[in-house]
Amino acid sequence: MQTLWDYRYAQRTQRMKSSAIRELLKLTEQPDIISFAGGLPAPEVFPVQEFDEACHRVLQEQGARALQYSTTEGYLPLREMIARHTQRYGIKVTPENILITSGSQQALDLIGKIFINHGDRILVESPTYLGALQAWNIYGAEYVTVPSDEDGLNTDYLEAALRAGPKFIYVLSNFQNPTGVTISLERRLRLVELADRYGVPIIEDDPYGQLRFEGEHIPSIVVLDNRIHSTNNGSCYAGNVIYLSTFSKTLAPGIRLAWVIAPPEVIRKLVQAKQGADLHTSTFNQIVAYEVARGGFLDKHVQHICQVYRERRDVMLEALEEHMPSGVHWTHPKGGLFLWASLPENLDSVQILEEAVQKKVAFVPGFSFYPCGGGENTMRLNFSNATPERINEGIARLARVIRNHIHKR
Amino acid sequence: MQTLWDYRYAQRTQRMKSSAIRELLKLTEQPDIISFAGGLPAPEVFPVQEFDEACHRVLQEQGARALQYSTTEGYLPLREMIARHTQRYGIKVTPENILITSGSQQALDLIGKIFINHGDRILVESPTYLGALQAWNIYGAEYVTVPSDEDGLNTDYLEAALRAGPKFIYVLSNFQNPTGVTISLERRLRLVELADRYGVPIIEDDPYGQLRFEGEHIPSIVVLDNRIHSTNNGSCYAGNVIYLSTFSKTLAPGIRLAWVIAPPEVIRKLVQAKQGADLHTSTFNQIVAYEVARGGFLDKHVQHICQVYRERRDVMLEALEEHMPSGVHWTHPKGGLFLWASLPENLDSVQILEEAVQKKVAFVPGFSFYPCGGGENTMRLNFSNATPERINEGIARLARVIRNHIHKR
Repeated sequence: MQTLWDYRYAQRTQRMKSSAIRELLKLTEQPDIISFAGGLPAPEVFPVQEFDEACHRVLQEQGARALQYSTTEGYLPLREMIARHTQRYGIKVTPENILITSGSQQALDLIGKIFINHGDRILVESPTYLGALQAWNIYGAEYVTVPSDEDGLNTDYLEAALRAGPKFIYVLSNFQNPTGVTISLERRLRLVELADRYGVPIIEDDPYGQLRFEGEHIPSIVVLDNRIHSTNNGSCYAGNVIYLSTFSKTLAPGIRLAWVIAPPEVIRKLVQAKQGADLHTSTFNQIVAYEVARGGFLDKHVQHICQVYRERRDVMLEALEEHMPSGVHWTHPKGGLFLWASLPENLDSVQILEEAVQKKVAFVPGFSFYPCGGGENTMRLNFSNATPERINEGIARLARVIRNHIHKR
Repeated sequence: MQTLWDYRYAQRTQRMKSSAIRELLKLTEQPDIISFAGGLPAPEVFPVQEFDEACHRVLQEQGARALQYSTTEGYLPLREMIARHTQRYGIKVTPENILITSGSQQALDLIGKIFINHGDRILVESPTYLGALQAWNIYGAEYVTVPSDEDGLNTDYLEAALRAGPKFIYVLSNFQNPTGVTISLERRLRLVELADRYGVPIIEDDPYGQLRFEGEHIPSIVVLDNRIHSTNNGSCYAGNVIYLSTFSKTLAPGIRLAWVIAPPEVIRKLVQAKQGADLHTSTFNQIVAYEVARGGFLDKHVQHICQVYRERRDVMLEALEEHMPSGVHWTHPKGGLFLWASLPENLDSVQILEEAVQKKVAFVPGFSFYPCGGGENTMRLNFSNATPERINEGIARLARVIRNHIHKR
């Protein structure tokens, strides 16, 4: 269909690539496919009853308010709850430091909007979260990458990358998407030290941090940075790290609710950008989420999610151990939703996916997560969404496809 | 607070101006102020019970789905319902032509994202909707303006403006925000004819079109354009007009739900942009809104809203007639939420606002709606939000402030 819009796209629109992979992944939405492709929470853990009760209470007690326009910053009691929650980890923030966003994806978009000039370099892990690349490509971001391993971002390569003059550093500290790995304490300290030396601020994206199945909590980068910078015994938020988190993995993603912690001046700019982007996040969803989460429910619920996901991760690890041919390796995440598998070199995971979809099993080819190329032999496997039985069956099918491929070569 | 973020803002961030007016308008949120400043629907008309029942039904019957991630395009039954609704006005669209957005503000942002290069000219009415300017300034838009009067956009000035080579035309066809005026049929036809001759596409923003209190419905610009272009007797959507509408004024703004009608290729680009902006609009809100709206409820409810708003408009018009000194003029909207008042020239409505706030009454100074200056003696008055008694009292107070000002000069 030819219309007058055809020749009127902005230059930046050229940077949005409609990917063949996306079309392939659409196939994975068929119900008979065992999909490890999405990043979907287990629907079984959604607190449906609690939502039902909260919706009823909110509509009966403050329906007019919940359905009306509200402020761009977000619902104050929710921001106060997030401030209290943050304080537990030894860092003091106030509602002035907090903006509620329509999912973390919007936080990434707004950050791109206020910080990224065309051609700016952003330092990211390689591989990194695809959604950040999608948000920032449109603003003309370029990337400087630092490889990661089982201890996360490899700080041995960090200083060279910092010399390229990145505008900011973007890392996922815990159970990273896509690899599932967590940045070790030693490397966090080194990251904070080098970022400080080069004067480069950090964005810490932490959607999965609360979903730890084993091992000790490692202090957040924002907390470690504070210990260096805060004038107040490290307790008050120093502001060089912008911290992102979300209710998508602990309550439900369908309500699109997340938050940014940043210095007040940055929050003010983000608020102005958000005003132009969607005015504010759904008033109703904010009040309902607050009603569901408060009074200790969220903490108990997170424990429940961790039990369910731990079992699924264990089943996936065991199935990989049992079925995968030698030469296939994978990470051992201590939490989160994903693990990361590497095939023998020269095996192309896109080809594997094409055949896997025939056998009714799917994953995301790893190359998508590399902003500067690489990872053709890797794949991201989600273990949170499928039931244990289907995880076992899916990995067995996937292993057969890979085995066939290895034999054909 | 000094942080590493201070010198890292993008150039476009300079175009976001934190306005003194915004600070002044914050005062108007105090409950003892009679505010004609917002664009808020009457909370009394929100269908709270219907929402309560729909939330319960949705969570009980499809809770897992409603709380899960969903597609960027939006909930299919909702898009089908919008397609059917659009068809009533004599234009055939399919769900492929429809994207659900997080309020119309997001539609404006996404349009800016995919179409506006820095320095592009956009043809707008003067005055025009402030939210569009806020969305597009950040992408570096410039504006070409065409004045409007009681019949809307004055097409006598249109051809000269089209010669400036605008990327697209942006108009609010019905009960415009801020003036409340509606573009006459004759001018709509002239607009469509000239836009076609110059090959410039149109964005028709129509949040208020259904809220008509009197007079005949005037065919939408998108419909009139179709009659010229469609190959199929004017029935199939021709695509040169992008049409925006919303549930904010007919159901509730707090759920942040709106839609775009555009050619499939534009929808695909918007979908990609939305994927990077917020992944998708709340699944829960989409399903609940569909459940509330379907089965004829929305039509009945819109009639109810029209009754309430008509009364409030009438009360405001009568109060203006009764209290305002000579030399003050105002529009007579046939629908919507706003009317527009002009003071004697050389009276500054910002000064009036400062004093009005002292007397516990507020409005938005009109200059904010002029992208290229002007309108210092104008004001936007919202009649949907305050009760009839408060409207009468508020206009009386405002008239006293204006009278004092005139006497002082």
